[in-house]
Amino acid sequence: MTDSRHIGFVGLGAMGHAMATTLLRHQYRVTGYDIREEARKKFETAGGNSASDAKGAARDVAALVLMTVNIDQAEAVLFENGALDSLPKGATVVLMATCAPSRVAALSRRVEATGRTFVDAPVSGGVVGAEAGTLTIMAAASQETFTRARPMLSAMGSGLVHIGTEPGQGAAMKIVNQLLCGVHIAVAAEGLAFAEKQGIDPKVALEILSGSAASSWMLKNRGPRMLQQDPAVSSAVDIFVKDLNLVLDAGRSAKMGLPLAALAHQYFLSASGMGLGAADDSQVIEAYRALAKLTK
Amino acid sequence: MTDSRHIGFVGLGAMGHAMATTLLRHQYRVTGYDIREEARKKFETAGGNSASDAKGAARDVAALVLMTVNIDQAEAVLFENGALDSLPKGATVVLMATCAPSRVAALSRRVEATGRTFVDAPVSGGVVGAEAGTLTIMAAASQETFTRARPMLSAMGSGLVHIGTEPGQGAAMKIVNQLLCGVHIAVAAEGLAFAEKQGIDPKVALEILSGSAASSWMLKNRGPRMLQQDPAVSSAVDIFVKDLNLVLDAGRSAKMGLPLAALAHQYFLSASGMGLGAADDSQVIEAYRALAKLTK
Repeated sequence: MTDSRHIGFVGLGAMGHAMATTLLRHQYRVTGYDIREEARKKFETAGGNSASDAKGAARDVAALVLMTVNIDQAEAVLFENGALDSLPKGATVVLMATCAPSRVAALSRRVEATGRTFVDAPVSGGVVGAEAGTLTIMAAASQETFTRARPMLSAMGSGLVHIGTEPGQGAAMKIVNQLLCGVHIAVAAEGLAFAEKQGIDPKVALEILSGSAASSWMLKNRGPRMLQQDPAVSSAVDIFVKDLNLVLDAGRSAKMGLPLAALAHQYFLSASGMGLGAADDSQVIEAYRALAKLTK
Repeated sequence: MTDSRHIGFVGLGAMGHAMATTLLRHQYRVTGYDIREEARKKFETAGGNSASDAKGAARDVAALVLMTVNIDQAEAVLFENGALDSLPKGATVVLMATCAPSRVAALSRRVEATGRTFVDAPVSGGVVGAEAGTLTIMAAASQETFTRARPMLSAMGSGLVHIGTEPGQGAAMKIVNQLLCGVHIAVAAEGLAFAEKQGIDPKVALEILSGSAASSWMLKNRGPRMLQQDPAVSSAVDIFVKDLNLVLDAGRSAKMGLPLAALAHQYFLSASGMGLGAADDSQVIEAYRALAKLTK
């Protein structure tokens, strides 16, 4: 009999590691796997078990959480690496990465055809939210599957919402979330660069904007790093190149033009083209500075 | 000798009325004027005095606050209507409307040449902030003039910042503020309309977005009204047509491209062209709904 508190966790990057260790703190037994040995070691140091391959992380667990970079990696883990075969019948695959809604729906059908259940459960809130267990989780699954997964999901995210019964709806909601997040970062950059161009101290501008009707979560979070030289990387420019691309793909699927998202995407892409793809996403401001002939 | 607590106030619209009555609450004596008789009557009912013309509002006051729709009206009040001649020498003109920075700088020079002082002091925070006295006020004036005006400004706005000593710098900061506000409203509309298009209940979407990293002050404030049929008008679509136009003008003056602001401007303009110019600015979402063939 499978222990309902034994969880497999594949993808121990910054987000995955924080989420998996939050599960440990809630007395879950977690077997983690990441392709990078250093990530597995880090998870062991934090008190987790690590498996030597994805199959091992899926063995004897009640749920297999996938926090991979994208859905291609999630599919590779499940099918090519054999994790799905290794996962007990009746157990649940919980996909928490940001993915295209149509592909999530297709993957869920493929998983459920093998006698496992599926929860589409992308998150918002970053590493800070993952560490604190305060993530927003947008879950889509049948009522029965959701009810079973709820305690584990609640441990990772105090902002858990059951958004619908069809996998893909969580992904669609996350896409809308990323649309706003991406545009909010880009417009914070546009505004702060414009303050600089007009000779306003950007630190004063940021303080005023953060306390006025112009404020956003992203302005307060990314704004300070926009004014730093080479800030620590919380989430990379290329993540938003990818996520806004998913937004635009979903727009094409739904046949809806998304002009602000498309424009913000071009700025993240330009920043990436300036060699800043691996830099903190706040550095999209460098694209604006380049056009306005500003230097830090 | 002029009573330092006697203030003239021209422009008693929704914002002006709320700001002037906040001054009354702080034991200022306020003589108000508005071209509309109904606005003057309303101010009298709230405990203020009203003048029969702009000149009367400027007589024997220590400061003349201008909360007109734009700088053209402010100039008409001061010069054509004779308020500046009526204002005592040494008194202060306090311009609190949203105006082009270059024109504010020119106006301040013209006022100061006549022996009056000038404070450039635009605000953010809406009618709610004006009523509560919690406005953000971005003030630019010489240190001496600012120090003299500070108690009165603090009464209207707990978020008072002395941004610089050159009039025009407050207006420039307000322009950056409106850039973010306008884009935040437009992207909230883009996101909520996209949620609808994908079959997500927009009320659920709004709840999730408001609690996640996708949140903004404008999303929380305007989002609920985007989902209402004919909501009450807090600030009209045409105000953002005007304000984002000022943003783009300031961009041209400073020689800086502002692509997100320009695109958001086109959406407010489109909503205005759909006959929604006088509707609540949250109704910019109708432009997105039109393009996505969505109905409320």
